[in-house]
Amino acid sequence: MDRIWVVKTGGQLLETPDQWQRLLMDLANRPDPFILVHGGGNYASTLTRALGGEPRMINGRRITTDLDLQVAIMVYAGLINKKLVAFLQGCNRPAIGLSGADGNAVQSIKRRAEEHDFGWVGDIISVNAALFLQLIQMGYSPVCCAITHDGGGQLLNTNADTIAAAIAKALVPHVSVHLRYLFDKPGVLYNSNDVSSMLPNLSHADYIKAKETNIFHTGMLPKLQNAFDAVQSGVASVRITNPENWVDGGTLLSL
Amino acid sequence: MDRIWVVKTGGQLLETPDQWQRLLMDLANRPDPFILVHGGGNYASTLTRALGGEPRMINGRRITTDLDLQVAIMVYAGLINKKLVAFLQGCNRPAIGLSGADGNAVQSIKRRAEEHDFGWVGDIISVNAALFLQLIQMGYSPVCCAITHDGGGQLLNTNADTIAAAIAKALVPHVSVHLRYLFDKPGVLYNSNDVSSMLPNLSHADYIKAKETNIFHTGMLPKLQNAFDAVQSGVASVRITNPENWVDGGTLLSL
Repeated sequence: MDRIWVVKTGGQLLETPDQWQRLLMDLANRPDPFILVHGGGNYASTLTRALGGEPRMINGRRITTDLDLQVAIMVYAGLINKKLVAFLQGCNRPAIGLSGADGNAVQSIKRRAEEHDFGWVGDIISVNAALFLQLIQMGYSPVCCAITHDGGGQLLNTNADTIAAAIAKALVPHVSVHLRYLFDKPGVLYNSNDVSSMLPNLSHADYIKAKETNIFHTGMLPKLQNAFDAVQSGVASVRITNPENWVDGGTLLSL
Repeated sequence: MDRIWVVKTGGQLLETPDQWQRLLMDLANRPDPFILVHGGGNYASTLTRALGGEPRMINGRRITTDLDLQVAIMVYAGLINKKLVAFLQGCNRPAIGLSGADGNAVQSIKRRAEEHDFGWVGDIISVNAALFLQLIQMGYSPVCCAITHDGGGQLLNTNADTIAAAIAKALVPHVSVHLRYLFDKPGVLYNSNDVSSMLPNLSHADYIKAKETNIFHTGMLPKLQNAFDAVQSGVASVRITNPENWVDGGTLLSL
């Protein structure tokens, strides 16, 4: 294969069937192989509350309690993953859903409680590139959710942006990898209140400079960190963009 | 490969970590390839009630409403499937979890509402035997939940006993298949109130005769029907047994 797309989607996009279905039809109709990585959207929080829990955050990062993990597994690995897979099959695009535990696709280690205890959160330690390549060669598009495992039987919650970057990086030695982060803005905004301030290009140096002046939306920082990490690891192109122009729109990141 | 086990487990066994973990360790330590098929247990009903629904049955068969289907996908394809897969990985036995939508593993058709409307229930029309054989040759043990799809994007609820029989039958042309239905009784009881009345052997003729006199526990009839269906299709051995003696204990079914 010449190239592969690693496309990460989540949040609001997954809550708008019209939008994610259009994206999946678009992906299904392209000849290139792709790996879809998805987050959760708000349904996990809704379900946690219905079960008597209350989602908690520290510094904008979610804490994963026992109940949160159980809900994340049900919503990410169950409901959303299977809905996306079934839809792709309906588009005649064979797909196979994976959590990090399936085929040891993405292994992680529980984050140590230091200043804060984030609970059942896993930091990635390895990606099974061979599995992804084999499935693609068999004609299946892997669809990956934001659940990993520690190799010892424990499932863990891992940020979907980070999973997408890790998978993209793991495939670099084998194929030309193109990573896309899709979200509900046209791209990276210089001024988060002004949609017309979208940057068509963003270099790592400019990012570091702009970060010092706190100019980006804080929710964008981890996504940018993951995206630059992929650029630095040899991913052929990395864009943060909306689902309408995901191939060559939005913000192109560079070294 | 010489032979393959198709092992179906569910119900109470899945609610007793001690029991299912012992079973999975046993499977993990055997050299033979296996496919694990699992049902749900009571957690799906608990979750349905927590979300404001109430499980309904007609003639001992569950009706699958929108909410029931959503819960079934979350619990079977999410929570239980990933827990079993992660545990097998922890036993150094590579495993990969599948719903029927994943790789088109098990395709079904929505049951038509005739006398009764069972809702989102699927009757199996095909099994992707090539996928199962490929995954096994790659060293992965497939772990299948009781969710199928119609090939057009719709997920459906399908009885796990029937899925196990369908997978076993689909593999018959390729390998010697041994099917095991595990449950919390020692085997098929001639008198459902008397554990010592376990039948070590049950022929189809005897089954038909006994069925006429309504001697078996009614919950056992669909399981027996699936089991004999597998025997008639050339599955090398079919046993209904408990998890302690699953290889050669319980009731052996014959033509």
